[in-house]
Amino acid sequence: MKIKLNRQSDQSLINQIANILAEKIRSGALEEGSQLPSIRKFSKENQVSHVTVSKAYTLLEKNRYICLEHGKGAFVRKKEQRKSIEDSKSRNYDWQLAIPDYIQRSQYMLNLAPENSIKLSSAIINPGLLPSTYLTKEINQVLQDDSQIVARYGPIQGDYEVREVIRKYLELYCQFKTISSEIIITSGVQQGIDLVARTFIGPGDIVITEAPTYTAALDVFRNRGAHIIPIPVDEEGMQTNILATLCLTKKPKVVYTIPTFHNPTGTVLSKKRRIDLLELAQRNGFLIIEDDSWNEIYFDDSLPPPNIKSMDNSGHVIYLKGFSKVLAPGCKIGVAVSNGTVHQRLLTSKSCTDLGSPLLTQKALIPFLSSNRMNKHLEKLRIALEIRRDQAIALLEKYAPEGVKWAIPKGGLNIWVTLPSSGNTDELLLKAQQSNISFLPSSACYPSEPHYNHMRISFSYLDDQKLEQGIIELCKVMELYFHEIKPNNNSV
Amino acid sequence: MKIKLNRQSDQSLINQIANILAEKIRSGALEEGSQLPSIRKFSKENQVSHVTVSKAYTLLEKNRYICLEHGKGAFVRKKEQRKSIEDSKSRNYDWQLAIPDYIQRSQYMLNLAPENSIKLSSAIINPGLLPSTYLTKEINQVLQDDSQIVARYGPIQGDYEVREVIRKYLELYCQFKTISSEIIITSGVQQGIDLVARTFIGPGDIVITEAPTYTAALDVFRNRGAHIIPIPVDEEGMQTNILATLCLTKKPKVVYTIPTFHNPTGTVLSKKRRIDLLELAQRNGFLIIEDDSWNEIYFDDSLPPPNIKSMDNSGHVIYLKGFSKVLAPGCKIGVAVSNGTVHQRLLTSKSCTDLGSPLLTQKALIPFLSSNRMNKHLEKLRIALEIRRDQAIALLEKYAPEGVKWAIPKGGLNIWVTLPSSGNTDELLLKAQQSNISFLPSSACYPSEPHYNHMRISFSYLDDQKLEQGIIELCKVMELYFHEIKPNNNSV
Repeated sequence: MKIKLNRQSDQSLINQIANILAEKIRSGALEEGSQLPSIRKFSKENQVSHVTVSKAYTLLEKNRYICLEHGKGAFVRKKEQRKSIEDSKSRNYDWQLAIPDYIQRSQYMLNLAPENSIKLSSAIINPGLLPSTYLTKEINQVLQDDSQIVARYGPIQGDYEVREVIRKYLELYCQFKTISSEIIITSGVQQGIDLVARTFIGPGDIVITEAPTYTAALDVFRNRGAHIIPIPVDEEGMQTNILATLCLTKKPKVVYTIPTFHNPTGTVLSKKRRIDLLELAQRNGFLIIEDDSWNEIYFDDSLPPPNIKSMDNSGHVIYLKGFSKVLAPGCKIGVAVSNGTVHQRLLTSKSCTDLGSPLLTQKALIPFLSSNRMNKHLEKLRIALEIRRDQAIALLEKYAPEGVKWAIPKGGLNIWVTLPSSGNTDELLLKAQQSNISFLPSSACYPSEPHYNHMRISFSYLDDQKLEQGIIELCKVMELYFHEIKPNNNSV
Repeated sequence: MKIKLNRQSDQSLINQIANILAEKIRSGALEEGSQLPSIRKFSKENQVSHVTVSKAYTLLEKNRYICLEHGKGAFVRKKEQRKSIEDSKSRNYDWQLAIPDYIQRSQYMLNLAPENSIKLSSAIINPGLLPSTYLTKEINQVLQDDSQIVARYGPIQGDYEVREVIRKYLELYCQFKTISSEIIITSGVQQGIDLVARTFIGPGDIVITEAPTYTAALDVFRNRGAHIIPIPVDEEGMQTNILATLCLTKKPKVVYTIPTFHNPTGTVLSKKRRIDLLELAQRNGFLIIEDDSWNEIYFDDSLPPPNIKSMDNSGHVIYLKGFSKVLAPGCKIGVAVSNGTVHQRLLTSKSCTDLGSPLLTQKALIPFLSSNRMNKHLEKLRIALEIRRDQAIALLEKYAPEGVKWAIPKGGLNIWVTLPSSGNTDELLLKAQQSNISFLPSSACYPSEPHYNHMRISFSYLDDQKLEQGIIELCKVMELYFHEIKPNNNSV
């Protein structure tokens, strides 16, 4: 078999031979099962060394084009052999298991709670508490006034009008002034976190989070290969003095914080610590992601301290806020507010991610957000959730086994429940699930070595009756669980 | 100054000293401008070595807490000094320039063409060709029937009903059968590409693309640190024989292809090469991203070959399709269809990215997609775009300077125009922009060393008059440009 070789080519003779033979096999010019010339013969006919031909044959075998049979020679593989094992129906996709990936699984797991279970794990607001009738009417009007909304792309940064409305909202409800050109519309806060991460966080970069913190944020940072360092939380939120110490020797790039009604603990970062944190950012040149999802949901008429962004005049804070949870989950609109080149760079990333959020969901919120209805809605929502919080706390007080503790949250959707140190909420969850109840175990909330004896229960999603049923049942499960683990404790 | 040191602590004495002093400075216990004890004195009082104190002072200086003045001693920095230069209003954000990031800029740049320019660069469909009146009516009806759509989160994977409608659509218009559980709803094709990249592509992983290819896909792969290897395109699309050669020695992880009406060249991957590509994937265990954005937009009644996914029974193909461009840009709905664990893993990533696309934009498309209107709409759209293509080609034939070539696209939105090899469309673009015209220069479309003598012009966005004006003007600019560069050619 004489083939054309190009001795001036960049490609090695080995690759050229393998390639030409592979092409002949693929095209059928060399039939299945037929024998290739011996190495000796091939090398003579084409004036190449034995070693070259031998290496080319080995390469073809490795790529499953031919079989080398000892003492017999080289044969073109039959097609079914070439396609390896994957034709057998039941194992069709097994090859996929060999593909490594870069994903984190914890958040996804959480969403696998069975559809019909009592989800104390759901930190979302019951749809019945949201103004869907008004919103629906308003969307109809918006579409009637401009039917081409569905046919247009909005700007990558977000529709100008909605940014302007949100700018006013931020001034009114979040006590800080910005300009609409510094606002980027995101598909919820989750995308905001993701945007910052994909822009600024890469392998080995140091990211600081509270410990515990929001599980899905951890997933995002891990996905970027960050080195995540946890800072513990006490009654006043993130312990900034520990962060200060850390900054003496390490160089954090990003600090992610939920200062107001922290998820999952419900704590509020004190004003002094907010100032400390910002000063540390200025001194050490790191960025702060301020996840301010809950500031409007305060109870007992006690307004939280001003957000960190409102004190930031140096562009250290990237402020994230969403309008999904408190207003319209079906629209998933959030914002990222930042300054200078940080803003420009986030905008570039937004372009890579999805070329901009849908125009329909942006335009949909304009009438409600810009009317006084939003104010009234928030007032009602606070009252409704405060009642639920009180109900949940009352139930815990009545039914929780001895030794179980919790803090009364001053806002937000969650209660952070603490078991005696011998308790393990991963174990407890397995038992709760048998009773058709789910909650968020603390193990999901720590970037490194987790605490196991806490859990987050949310009072915002379930209706009154289910909430009562859920907490009472959960307390029973705890009671049983404590009985089970007691002997072990004694034996230690 | 006697301070409390813990000689049993994990923290070094240096860090403990620095930390305690920093705390005193932050709290004001040590006043601005005040002098710290000398190293000798401090070391004596606290029974630590001179070296330890000296190192702690140096650490404090590095962190801008104190100044070490030679021969005088250590002083607490004044606050304005500590805050460095960033208080001067105009330079507030300069510190940000020191933050490295992980983003690519090419796509973003493209979107910066001035709002009022004649955008031959816009590969989107004129809103007037989209059925916005119908869609708007239908959305109103959908919201009337279920006003809680805005108040609910949909499943992360996407609303079941819309997945079922799209499943049928894929069977009808894209000739392949799937099941709705294998469909993930994405925010457009761009998010689909991004999902695959963040799931499967990491630093150094080999990604194959056509050369040229879709600019924004390159940005996404680069952002993940991929090693991108280009495979040239000829009249039959990606040259799969070159890929086969490459596979003999390299191990691609993902091959990204736009087989039908390829962006930017408009070519169609031949059926034989589709089979080749899939066989290579099966033999070498790589994934294929099949970006099938345009298959419905075929001209001259010539249906494109079956998509690769329709031949895939081993789960090698991740099929991406969008309903933004051909139907409703304002909704930004797309799908990723895949199998086995690849599907599961994409779903996990979708969870990390945004916890699911908005329910409103999903539900909005159900009536139109499931009615016969979609069929009629596509028929009309094909005719309208075919007319535009013919118009654009006729204008090029009439006005383009000698030596300029193009292929007549059989579908899609673009014409790939080739200048003589001495031409450079980056240079040409600068001149075109002066005449208020933009197009996509080929330099943006190559993963490595680019070709400079091509450009993509889109005929789908501009109205007839602007299209005519734009192409005539562009041809004039080319004419002038060729005159300018001619002397240079002769002098070489």
